Amino acid sequence: MINIRFQPMDINIQAETGENLLDIARRSEVYIDAPCNGSLTCGKCKVKVIEGKVDSSSSHHIKDIELKAGYVLACNTKVVEDIIIEVPSGQSSDMLGMKIEDLSGPRDQEIFRRARSQVLDNDMRFSSYVKKDYLEIELPTLDDNISDWDRIRRYLRNQLGYTQVFCRLPMLRKIPTLIRESDFKITITHIPRGHGRTTIVNIEMGDTTNRLYGVALDIGTTSVAACLVDLYEGKLLAKASSGNAQMKYGADVIHRIIYATKNDGLENLNHAIVHETINPLLKKMYQEAGVDKDEIAAFVVAGNTTMSHLLLGIYPNNLRLEPYIPTFSKAPFIKASELELEANPETFLYILPSIASYVGGDIAAGVLASGIWNSEENILFIDLGTNGEIVFGNKDFLITCACSAGPAFEGGEISCGMRASGGAIERVEIDNNTYIPKFSIIYNEKPKGICGSGIIDLIAEMLKTGLIDRRGKINRDLNTDRIRFDEYNIGEYVLAFKEEWGLGEDITITEIDIDNFIKAKGAVYSGGSTLIHSLEMDFNMIDKVYIAGGIGNSLSIEKSIEIGLFPDIEIEKFVYIGNSSLMGCYLTLMSEDARRKMEEFSNQMTYIELSAYPGYMDEFISACFLPHTDIQRFPTVEKILHDYKTNKVT
Amino acid sequence: MINIRFQPMDINIQAETGENLLDIARRSEVYIDAPCNGSLTCGKCKVKVIEGKVDSSSSHHIKDIELKAGYVLACNTKVVEDIIIEVPSGQSSDMLGMKIEDLSGPRDQEIFRRARSQVLDNDMRFSSYVKKDYLEIELPTLDDNISDWDRIRRYLRNQLGYTQVFCRLPMLRKIPTLIRESDFKITITHIPRGHGRTTIVNIEMGDTTNRLYGVALDIGTTSVAACLVDLYEGKLLAKASSGNAQMKYGADVIHRIIYATKNDGLENLNHAIVHETINPLLKKMYQEAGVDKDEIAAFVVAGNTTMSHLLLGIYPNNLRLEPYIPTFSKAPFIKASELELEANPETFLYILPSIASYVGGDIAAGVLASGIWNSEENILFIDLGTNGEIVFGNKDFLITCACSAGPAFEGGEISCGMRASGGAIERVEIDNNTYIPKFSIIYNEKPKGICGSGIIDLIAEMLKTGLIDRRGKINRDLNTDRIRFDEYNIGEYVLAFKEEWGLGEDITITEIDIDNFIKAKGAVYSGGSTLIHSLEMDFNMIDKVYIAGGIGNSLSIEKSIEIGLFPDIEIEKFVYIGNSSLMGCYLTLMSEDARRKMEEFSNQMTYIELSAYPGYMDEFISACFLPHTDIQRFPTVEKILHDYKTNKVT
Repeated sequence: MINIRFQPMDINIQAETGENLLDIARRSEVYIDAPCNGSLTCGKCKVKVIEGKVDSSSSHHIKDIELKAGYVLACNTKVVEDIIIEVPSGQSSDMLGMKIEDLSGPRDQEIFRRARSQVLDNDMRFSSYVKKDYLEIELPTLDDNISDWDRIRRYLRNQLGYTQVFCRLPMLRKIPTLIRESDFKITITHIPRGHGRTTIVNIEMGDTTNRLYGVALDIGTTSVAACLVDLYEGKLLAKASSGNAQMKYGADVIHRIIYATKNDGLENLNHAIVHETINPLLKKMYQEAGVDKDEIAAFVVAGNTTMSHLLLGIYPNNLRLEPYIPTFSKAPFIKASELELEANPETFLYILPSIASYVGGDIAAGVLASGIWNSEENILFIDLGTNGEIVFGNKDFLITCACSAGPAFEGGEISCGMRASGGAIERVEIDNNTYIPKFSIIYNEKPKGICGSGIIDLIAEMLKTGLIDRRGKINRDLNTDRIRFDEYNIGEYVLAFKEEWGLGEDITITEIDIDNFIKAKGAVYSGGSTLIHSLEMDFNMIDKVYIAGGIGNSLSIEKSIEIGLFPDIEIEKFVYIGNSSLMGCYLTLMSEDARRKMEEFSNQMTYIELSAYPGYMDEFISACFLPHTDIQRFPTVEKILHDYKTNKVT
Repeated sequence: MINIRFQPMDINIQAETGENLLDIARRSEVYIDAPCNGSLTCGKCKVKVIEGKVDSSSSHHIKDIELKAGYVLACNTKVVEDIIIEVPSGQSSDMLGMKIEDLSGPRDQEIFRRARSQVLDNDMRFSSYVKKDYLEIELPTLDDNISDWDRIRRYLRNQLGYTQVFCRLPMLRKIPTLIRESDFKITITHIPRGHGRTTIVNIEMGDTTNRLYGVALDIGTTSVAACLVDLYEGKLLAKASSGNAQMKYGADVIHRIIYATKNDGLENLNHAIVHETINPLLKKMYQEAGVDKDEIAAFVVAGNTTMSHLLLGIYPNNLRLEPYIPTFSKAPFIKASELELEANPETFLYILPSIASYVGGDIAAGVLASGIWNSEENILFIDLGTNGEIVFGNKDFLITCACSAGPAFEGGEISCGMRASGGAIERVEIDNNTYIPKFSIIYNEKPKGICGSGIIDLIAEMLKTGLIDRRGKINRDLNTDRIRFDEYNIGEYVLAFKEEWGLGEDITITEIDIDNFIKAKGAVYSGGSTLIHSLEMDFNMIDKVYIAGGIGNSLSIEKSIEIGLFPDIEIEKFVYIGNSSLMGCYLTLMSEDARRKMEEFSNQMTYIELSAYPGYMDEFISACFLPHTDIQRFPTVEKILHDYKTNKVT
């Protein structure tokens, strides 16, 4: 056995000779970002060997100077002797420091208010599917000697009108002792299902009717957000978010699905989301709010279809194989204990229904929270996460598709790309004449890389200032030290020189990065336009564009239009609606009426499978231009480009 | 640590100095009979120390000569050094060799036929609550891309009319792979619940509709019997029975309830019934019949109320504390996996409803199988097991009570008493003049002791031949070496001299044994008469007496009347109906109509709590005589006694 020590976390672990370094890190719960899950395409799992030797093949992701300094790709490295490994801070801190919608800022409060109004303005009640009732039950005597359970049922029938009451074995086991210790004064938590039927999910001593709590949970491919809610008032008692620990097995759903087909893969992914991601978030919230896990009576979860399958431990491989079939869209009755979630074991888990293999419950939640389902106006809803999902419609129809945008909006497939965590450049401006950039950095730390909103800004600015042309190619004729070309004549622009900031290396964007990003934005634009055109409509008939998802936090709408990510329509029509998935979970938790409505419209949404849609490929290829092959679709951008050119000092 | 070796099973186990020998045996799964569970009253846990020393107090259960030979009571012995212990064969073989109703003999076939006729003659269908259907489902395509689960539901809705179909998570996990490996041709096992609702409990590849199996299980305090049934034909494919492994924690329900209140007590009792008793029986049956455990689609269980509580792991102590309240009478929905039973994990476990704390689902089953519930005649039903339960009634009313008869009918509280296993004396005759007994022994082995039916015979014969008087006292004036008195002037009758048979000691019955037995038979008789009299009826209004339970196997009705266990009515009215509890389980398994009927009459049965019934105590005391204080209630016996006296050679 060989000893591997990870720094700076100071974790020691034994390994076999020849074992893969990324695998070792995973089983020792050392977080190393590996978006491509070891397929050698992303180059993100860079670590530094500070003592000992390893067996590692070379890779174009490791520069010569890095190689000399001891850098290797963990996925490409076998251990052969005792070593000490340093995990760069940009790696291990990613997951915890991620900047995620937390509903606390003023803009978030506005989003929250708007989501609640979706219930209140539409004649739906704020009344959760779970209830509490306090029972003062008559004591048994020799003459009235029915069983404890029959006694509880009799009370519920006679006093509250429930004619059919159900409970499960673990509940029954609690009854005999608990009911006597509380002198037959108990509070039951239950889920009424109409027609006099109800299911008991908890029994507590005495009167605890003032404490009724639920959890709303949004499971994104990249990040997970949760809130703890008082089910009477709808008040947020605590909130928490973190990266999805499944990231170590791949950045996007396709890599994770493939990993799930390997030995223990599905089990590891399920463990990562439940035990390494959700349960720590829950514990943190319970502690913050002073709530016991057994008091959690309702639990609503949204995620994309792959995330829902992995949460339930269901083999997901058919999602990625034609004809792309999920195992379920609406999940059966599941108890928290079946998934080992930190909640009352009997708590019913409501998982928002998926619409298709690549349009999940998170989108159903988003449609609910944004109110498209009841809108008179035509609304285009774009959720920009690890993938991009689009919905178009109003109260009469809803149509949806998924764009294979990949992880570019979260920094994936971009050499200096990173997620929106501390140190990420999130806004960029470039001087039209000097080509010198100004930027803002999350948490004002030293820059570590560029996140999605930063890349959008950067490409828009490079386009306007003439640093790149409309194909995304760098202008070979400019006289600036910020532009340079490698031996293969691939150009890059330097956003931050290492000397300026005291970095290990320059932060740059290459022509390859730009090309990747153009494909991602082209996928989103062409998805939207295909949806609209499939109805024989055009973008001008859109009344509002709702932008949802983590990307949106510091996203510039103007610049997104400038690069052709969004259609060129009036800026005023765009509304940033935040984490609408979490908001939709919250509404589902708080309002049974809203839940029913959401199930209804989810069932009726039309899904378009873009890969099989005639004309989509042409539309996509046309969109892989800045802002688009057909500049007349972007008249505003055409004017801006013209103005910039005119304003140059010559 | 000390080493303890048990012979002849050759089991070694480590123990702490000072640990109790009975506890050590239990945790090493060495079976030592301990009916009183260590309260020093029964003297049954006798073992022999063949090497080493122990710390053991003396007990009146160990005779001097036994003490010298190394015998100790395990419950009363602490270990202090390495020892070798011999467990007498009469101990360890008891559980396996027990003679239990197995439905295979000609009389059993008749009982089986009669039970089936309870369904057929009463316009009820033989149709189990569980069904199988074979589905050939359309393959998914890009245009028809609903989820696997929705596809199964759509088929069930369109082809079979089920509008609401449920399944649980483990089933969902099976679907994606299984359905594709079988080319979308699957067989579902499901439990329809009316109104278009059904729950899927298994999914198999291909067409397996010809294989649908269920298990009926009778959990007695002393013995457990099971059968494996083809749910189409009702054919018995296999049967099995054994002792209840909980016996090591006490012979009767009261001792077990007390044990359940101790540390780990409830857990140990639950483990004993599930893992040490039921699962081995199930495995044996599956092997015999060539059935896989996953093919078990239905599971019906009956037991007394304490057995039902212990099976489910529910704290039973309130059953024995006034006002004697069970936790449940009708159990909720329970899956086989929740109890770790060897069956398809999703199999629904139907537990027959209890009627009261001491009248359980076994009696509901007995009433169903015997057909009292639909009888024009007045029927007295007596179940003689570890306790005695009595039902009286006809199609218009049913009334029931439990008698605290204790374990005497199974040899408990009788010095040479034993259960009806190999070596038990089961029938006895005594010569009216020589007082020499003749007897028959189960499996014709060397006699080891007397079982219930043997004790009844023996006491009846002793009464008739004048060996005892009507109080059960031995006649001091007889000239026979079979009668002798100890230093306290307590008399005993020698049934088998050790020299005759090559035994370790004589087999005898003492006045104390007879007294204990008279109390047990008095409890049963007075229970029955209290039931009858509570209706202002008398025994002559009984049309039939059904005798059920293991005791009945070789029971003599005549002699049972002679000692006053049964009322003195025409012999022809008595019918031995065997293990009616198992029969009732079988019917419940096979016929949903029968199950509904049983739930209906169980709800309507009147329970009389004897301990609180006015006049019961007087009735009981009057019955503690042979045959009864009031001999006029037993005119036939009066005549027999007179005849015997007359026929004596003087």
